[in-house]
Amino acid sequence: MSLLVVGSIALDDVETPKAKVEGALGGSNTFISIAASYFTKPIHMVGVVGEDFPKEHIDLFNKYDINLEGLQIIKGGKTFRWGGVYLENFIDRDTNYTDLNVFENFNPVIPESQKKSKVVLLGNIDPVLQLNVLEQIENPELVICDTMNLWINIRNQELKEVINKIDVLIINDSEAKMLADENNLIKAAKMILKTGPKYLIIKKGEHGAMLFHNEDIFSAPAFPIEELHDPTGAGDTFAGGFAGYLLKTGDITYENMKTAVVYGSVLASFSVEQFSTGGIEDLTEGKINERFEAFKKMAQF
Amino acid sequence: MSLLVVGSIALDDVETPKAKVEGALGGSNTFISIAASYFTKPIHMVGVVGEDFPKEHIDLFNKYDINLEGLQIIKGGKTFRWGGVYLENFIDRDTNYTDLNVFENFNPVIPESQKKSKVVLLGNIDPVLQLNVLEQIENPELVICDTMNLWINIRNQELKEVINKIDVLIINDSEAKMLADENNLIKAAKMILKTGPKYLIIKKGEHGAMLFHNEDIFSAPAFPIEELHDPTGAGDTFAGGFAGYLLKTGDITYENMKTAVVYGSVLASFSVEQFSTGGIEDLTEGKINERFEAFKKMAQF
Repeated sequence: MSLLVVGSIALDDVETPKAKVEGALGGSNTFISIAASYFTKPIHMVGVVGEDFPKEHIDLFNKYDINLEGLQIIKGGKTFRWGGVYLENFIDRDTNYTDLNVFENFNPVIPESQKKSKVVLLGNIDPVLQLNVLEQIENPELVICDTMNLWINIRNQELKEVINKIDVLIINDSEAKMLADENNLIKAAKMILKTGPKYLIIKKGEHGAMLFHNEDIFSAPAFPIEELHDPTGAGDTFAGGFAGYLLKTGDITYENMKTAVVYGSVLASFSVEQFSTGGIEDLTEGKINERFEAFKKMAQF
Repeated sequence: MSLLVVGSIALDDVETPKAKVEGALGGSNTFISIAASYFTKPIHMVGVVGEDFPKEHIDLFNKYDINLEGLQIIKGGKTFRWGGVYLENFIDRDTNYTDLNVFENFNPVIPESQKKSKVVLLGNIDPVLQLNVLEQIENPELVICDTMNLWINIRNQELKEVINKIDVLIINDSEAKMLADENNLIKAAKMILKTGPKYLIIKKGEHGAMLFHNEDIFSAPAFPIEELHDPTGAGDTFAGGFAGYLLKTGDITYENMKTAVVYGSVLASFSVEQFSTGGIEDLTEGKINERFEAFKKMAQF
């Protein structure tokens, strides 16, 4: 089954306590699409880059069979660029700059053949664009949406409109508390579920992830990482692995979503072990399943 | 099988964002012993109180069949008293005062009949006292030890001596990082395991608990609590439930310790729902097992 992914494609300047990279491939769509490609084909990427976007990155997308029909390359434009510094704990970060560049006037156009997509993943971008995409899709079976604190702050109304239209919302714990304006995470989750989505996934970084559905709660551990290198894109990678597994199995029940949450966590655990997309390149089914079994062993009693 | 518990017995003045209690029954030994009593008998309590210690609390210990032969009641003395205020997040707290009172000159004396105890739980008290107790015990099969940041700071050498002599160390995540002087929790855990204990349990509050043994890691979720009332004693209650379950089953293997960690979490989840010992009084096997099953459902995939 095909997956339609809308999100940013970026060049990142990232500094962590360990090292520094410049112009590294990033953006929510990048991480989501590569992660999902291990589970399902085709992946349709909808996004925008500038003429400066390196050919090697396009080659990388092609390597993972990512369909680029919906990728706009703006003549003379510059690719979205983000620069940030992770602090000692590898969680908190300071943004040095966010140069929207070609993203500033991005108008996502879903190719005709992709308008009937059954599963849509709205990566973390302006909720106004997420709404615009939803209007172009005919009758999707499952819409998964990621967002971030920025949009909770500056596009609150539009974000709530998006949330009301989707099936699965993926956010982190501080965002959930902010969105619900409630300090107790469990209460916050239940409040968010009442505003639209049937499923809510809360990512808690080194503390794992939780899936909420009606009165049910599933709690997945995180993989024990001793050498964290770059958390950029871990959440997007999680979403990609999660969606990819659902598509691979063609099963969108709560029971199967639990396993999908673990596969999302598996992919995210690879992602943080290297800079940029390094950690999720050249994975194999064997490597992925081996780590999945490690999660099982860690959680079973 | 019998359990020997050494720890504090206190009267607490606790204030949370929700309410305030004065002179409430507290102390590590109190929570440990009541929690363990649901799994195993007898519990031998070794500790000290003043003449002011209310008879109703003695009655409560008796209600749970806790053996008080090792409880010293100091004529004219005042019971250890702690006063603290929990902040809005119910995790951080400010200590208003710590009046050691009779605890200042406490010299734990293990009754003759209890010196052959097979399982010993050293509750969170001065490591100097913990060492003193260990010297009195003949050949225990399992020693479990809890501690806190205060002792890591002011009794570091003595604490390390204790840690070198025990089997299971129970601490929280910030204490583990402090003890190992390492910010990565997984690395910190492995470093601590090298200093003596065969098993290390790291409590992470609302994020659950982890058990480390050699290269193995077990990660238990936390019970979703919507109405937190008083976190005081939750860690002690955890330790009591953990030790009690090990004794009940008579099985101190790593496999069984995973289940014991979950039973510890079950008891701790009851503990935080009410002030003082309110949450762990009048539990039944049915209530405990029902919540254990809820943990299973939450963790299985």
